[in-house]
Amino acid sequence: MSSDDLAELGGLTSAQVRKDLSVFGNFGVRGRGYNVDDLHGVLRKILGLDQTWLCVVVGAGRLGSALTSYPEFASQGFHIVGVFDSDPKQCGRQLGATIVRPIGELEEFARKESASVGIIATPASAARESADRLIRGGIRGILNFAPTSLDVPEGVSVRHVNLAIELEGLSFAITTADLPGELA
Amino acid sequence: MSSDDLAELGGLTSAQVRKDLSVFGNFGVRGRGYNVDDLHGVLRKILGLDQTWLCVVVGAGRLGSALTSYPEFASQGFHIVGVFDSDPKQCGRQLGATIVRPIGELEEFARKESASVGIIATPASAARESADRLIRGGIRGILNFAPTSLDVPEGVSVRHVNLAIELEGLSFAITTADLPGELA
Repeated sequence: MSSDDLAELGGLTSAQVRKDLSVFGNFGVRGRGYNVDDLHGVLRKILGLDQTWLCVVVGAGRLGSALTSYPEFASQGFHIVGVFDSDPKQCGRQLGATIVRPIGELEEFARKESASVGIIATPASAARESADRLIRGGIRGILNFAPTSLDVPEGVSVRHVNLAIELEGLSFAITTADLPGELA
Repeated sequence: MSSDDLAELGGLTSAQVRKDLSVFGNFGVRGRGYNVDDLHGVLRKILGLDQTWLCVVVGAGRLGSALTSYPEFASQGFHIVGVFDSDPKQCGRQLGATIVRPIGELEEFARKESASVGIIATPASAARESADRLIRGGIRGILNFAPTSLDVPEGVSVRHVNLAIELEGLSFAITTADLPGELA
């Protein structure tokens, strides 16, 4: 497959495709393009998708429950091995392939299972304590759905997901679609 | 507030802040900066957040249920007025401030309520039919959580949310944190 083909699929220019891929090594052959299987394997390795990531979820409410049963996670190598909640009424119930455990057991569980990813699906008020527990449990990366910033030590990665921002992007697109000229 | 202050808050340069805001008009006063209340109001208007957006959700499973009770939506002006599902067992049950209705009622309901935003929280196999129904119901923007591309007519905006991609970004960050040199 040529960089032209890849550019068209990705909505980019072929020069950008070649430049971006060249950051990671020399994969293409001039005039012949990229071997699709090789490139696919290399990209999966770069993204860390050639391995299995063990994840724990904090918060067994509606969002935590939805995330625990989100089929695309497992298909990309993200396996949820534990779900934790501070509400005793939530604890003990089955959720996906696991049961909801008390929040106090998180650190020991995460260390014992060698979990490396934590997903925070708590209210904002509980997010920082959740992050602290995850970090004490040896977690290396946090996906934070709570609308709060988190302070984490070096070596721990955080990504924030704010679903309201997606709706704001949509309302911006709808609003500007009504405008003539430069903004639309 | 100066463009320097805004730049620091946003992790940008002050020149970029001034340039980006100038696309939308002349808000700042040279040497004095921006009036925070004025700027806040203008930005909310640009983003379409000065109005109420009526939303319908397709899919009353775990993800749809979580989205329907996501508190940040309402606080940003996005009000979920209807939830629809193809499963008769889901229909009739209370969800947030509404009840789950049969999918066949979507078009008429959306038109009658003047809903303008549709949220697709179905499996991939049902996403395209859901989008067609939303469009026939007069929806102007779609937030799609199903892992499928959608063909929509001009004048309809679509945003895709793939939660697995957020985890992939995290696994990339963790993987590269282990690497020495340029990648890390």
